[in-house]
Amino acid sequence: MRSFYIAFILLFSGISISAQTNSIDDSLNIRKIYDMSLLNGKSYAWLDHLSNEIGGRLSGSHGAEQAVEYTKAELENLGLDKVWLQPVMVPKWTRGEREFAYVQTAPGETRNLNITALGGSIATPAGGTKAKVIEVQGIEQLKEYGRENIEGKIVFYNRPMRADHIQTFEAYGGCVDQRYSGAEEAAKYGAVGVIVRSMNLRMDDLPHTGAMSYGDLPNDQRIPAAAVSTNDAQYLSGMLKIQNDLDLYFKMSCEIHEDVQSYNVIGEITGSKYPNEIMIVGGHLDSWDLGDGAHDDGAGVVQSMEVLRLLKETGYEPKRSIRVVLFMNEENGLRGGNKYAEVAKLKSEDHVFALESDAGGFTPRGFGITANDTQFKKILSWKRLFKPYLIHYFERGGGGADINPLKGGDMVLAGLRPDSQRYFDYHHAANDTFDKVNKRELELGAATMTSLIYLVDKYGLDNINNETVEMPD
Amino acid sequence: MRSFYIAFILLFSGISISAQTNSIDDSLNIRKIYDMSLLNGKSYAWLDHLSNEIGGRLSGSHGAEQAVEYTKAELENLGLDKVWLQPVMVPKWTRGEREFAYVQTAPGETRNLNITALGGSIATPAGGTKAKVIEVQGIEQLKEYGRENIEGKIVFYNRPMRADHIQTFEAYGGCVDQRYSGAEEAAKYGAVGVIVRSMNLRMDDLPHTGAMSYGDLPNDQRIPAAAVSTNDAQYLSGMLKIQNDLDLYFKMSCEIHEDVQSYNVIGEITGSKYPNEIMIVGGHLDSWDLGDGAHDDGAGVVQSMEVLRLLKETGYEPKRSIRVVLFMNEENGLRGGNKYAEVAKLKSEDHVFALESDAGGFTPRGFGITANDTQFKKILSWKRLFKPYLIHYFERGGGGADINPLKGGDMVLAGLRPDSQRYFDYHHAANDTFDKVNKRELELGAATMTSLIYLVDKYGLDNINNETVEMPD
Repeated sequence: MRSFYIAFILLFSGISISAQTNSIDDSLNIRKIYDMSLLNGKSYAWLDHLSNEIGGRLSGSHGAEQAVEYTKAELENLGLDKVWLQPVMVPKWTRGEREFAYVQTAPGETRNLNITALGGSIATPAGGTKAKVIEVQGIEQLKEYGRENIEGKIVFYNRPMRADHIQTFEAYGGCVDQRYSGAEEAAKYGAVGVIVRSMNLRMDDLPHTGAMSYGDLPNDQRIPAAAVSTNDAQYLSGMLKIQNDLDLYFKMSCEIHEDVQSYNVIGEITGSKYPNEIMIVGGHLDSWDLGDGAHDDGAGVVQSMEVLRLLKETGYEPKRSIRVVLFMNEENGLRGGNKYAEVAKLKSEDHVFALESDAGGFTPRGFGITANDTQFKKILSWKRLFKPYLIHYFERGGGGADINPLKGGDMVLAGLRPDSQRYFDYHHAANDTFDKVNKRELELGAATMTSLIYLVDKYGLDNINNETVEMPD
Repeated sequence: MRSFYIAFILLFSGISISAQTNSIDDSLNIRKIYDMSLLNGKSYAWLDHLSNEIGGRLSGSHGAEQAVEYTKAELENLGLDKVWLQPVMVPKWTRGEREFAYVQTAPGETRNLNITALGGSIATPAGGTKAKVIEVQGIEQLKEYGRENIEGKIVFYNRPMRADHIQTFEAYGGCVDQRYSGAEEAAKYGAVGVIVRSMNLRMDDLPHTGAMSYGDLPNDQRIPAAAVSTNDAQYLSGMLKIQNDLDLYFKMSCEIHEDVQSYNVIGEITGSKYPNEIMIVGGHLDSWDLGDGAHDDGAGVVQSMEVLRLLKETGYEPKRSIRVVLFMNEENGLRGGNKYAEVAKLKSEDHVFALESDAGGFTPRGFGITANDTQFKKILSWKRLFKPYLIHYFERGGGGADINPLKGGDMVLAGLRPDSQRYFDYHHAANDTFDKVNKRELELGAATMTSLIYLVDKYGLDNINNETVEMPD
């Protein structure tokens, strides 16, 4: 045991010495990456175009189509080794006329509510849906109330995001089942519609949309579903305490269309030494339709493009093939992510690493990483290189929806972790707009991603011995 | 050497074991502090009042007076052991009519510039000042140009904040001499006025004010000084390249008045065991007049008040006396900070620790700490308690302008370090308003400050042996 322990120490101190020899180079190269991103970055200008010239990019929309063309052209301008479109059929759902809702507070007296259709919802009947409301704190409460209390009513899901979670994605995870499966479950009890409190930690007037699903529910049992702003959810809940037989009216004219042709946009710097080992970095090109999708996920798109631009600009020649993948249809189908993985499998491509940015363009804090022990330790050994940039978060677990279908074997998945406090102020709402993104925060994220890609490419991640072999490069 | 090394290891492992025994308690208490701040915090409501009901709080203004009354009353509501006002005479400077400036681009053709008087500047003559412009990149360039090129002109200081600094306060530090001493130095070369590029990392139309000084310059040699927005600084610089004999006109009617009576606002929880050992936490009550001073430093004020409220609410009984000090006149005189230190010295009060929050109400990252080796190591030993809250920055150096006059002996000074990327978007400008502060970010800062105060009070900071002695408490 003791000799093992000593060998272990020697092994690690050996690595630490060899790492030291190279650390000056790495420090300087990473400094160069950050400098270039902050002083002459392109990410912010790209985001300006995506957000302000194109706008919302819901799958199947004209905006999504324009975004494909624009990002392909911009990637071509970078002088990458290859740029191509990967065809993928995507669902098309349209919101139609602006939604409308009110509660009847007295005969002839109404108060409007700020609602938005959930993505994938069916329309209400042309004349709207009017019914009594039953408030629940979650899906599990449906059973408690039973069909006798729910049938013919609108179910109002009102469980808020918990403010005491430090990472807001955990608060989101604790609520989003209401939005995703609320309609499917309420329909089983005979509800005629669903209103869900917006997934928002602030009190404001903006409803937040997002994906929902009817699961296997037959078409004729499906019911319309909308999100209501947090302020109006509070109002409605308060009114129901006073007057529990309140009528709620809502009208939505959304439509589900035939699938349409769309594309993932892909660019590649082909590896100089191991061209068949593929590393990808990506975000999703589609967005919801209410805002212009600047944080979700315009930021991730332009940061991923910037990674390849910065690698080229710094003069670094990757050993492995590095691809930027701009996925289509993350929001309401994940068709792009699934298609990319399917094609990779079909072609027996060897994907060794994938990094996703889909948590907003806020100050980067680090990465969530799905890797084995050896791989994770190796990434941890680079942590000190990130310290000057205040990047401190290197924790296990993470990746992203679009890269997840690639998971398997020894492949490493990572997700950029920006500061999450303000993300749900904007997420899927009309205020997810360009002016909410800070240029420096966006650029720091791009540089942080580029630095990780640089280190993974330079040192590999297979096991610790490889590092020694590759250090002279 | 070797025996020393072993003793050193034993010493540290001993500490680590005793720290472990108490760490569960500490973890739970700190969790409670964060929960209370996020779920039932008062900081955001206080900031709403300070920003939206009172507004700008420049020393000597009605707003500053109202802020003294309001915060004193709110501290009294907390049931502290003592609340009092500490009188301090403060300078009074008023901006007067809105400033006006233009450049003459051709005979009869002008373009307006967005300017604001620097705090403490004299007015222009009643009819304004009109003169040719000379652009410089800093004070050192005045000598290079010499009196022959500067006399009778307006000096335009245009060195921008450097975007490649990761911590924006460093970029500020690299420019602010132009604002503070630019007029004094230019006057020595016969300049008739000074225009300074705003200390802002973004390109926008808002001029940022801030303190300036004429040093020992006689009254009749003083010249008016204004800040210009970054967009207009770029414009002006571009125009000067085309047309270097451009005339610039500006008019300001600011006034310096007699000093007026004001106050530091102080509240105290008297220590149960060492009442004479005083720890303070504070921010500054005054602000510039353009916005409502929500980030600078309304945030620090309400966070400091919240520290004492949270300590009381969690039921923690401090051993030492803990004071919240809301300093008056940080922005243009530091009279409050100096007065507090002067009175402390006069009364031979034993201040052992001071914490300041004056870097905006953004997501907290950690602390800058001025301490000796032993004290710093002890604080570092608590770092792991902060990890769940993503607080990672514990670096030497730091404190704050208002607590600095207390410095000396073994006293420890600390400054909260929030994320700094957006601070200079708002700093001293008209957009430093309540809506720019995120409730959660503000509350996380208050909880982070409270947690440090709790640990310092509980374990002391004098030396490592003390920790062992005090652990059973």
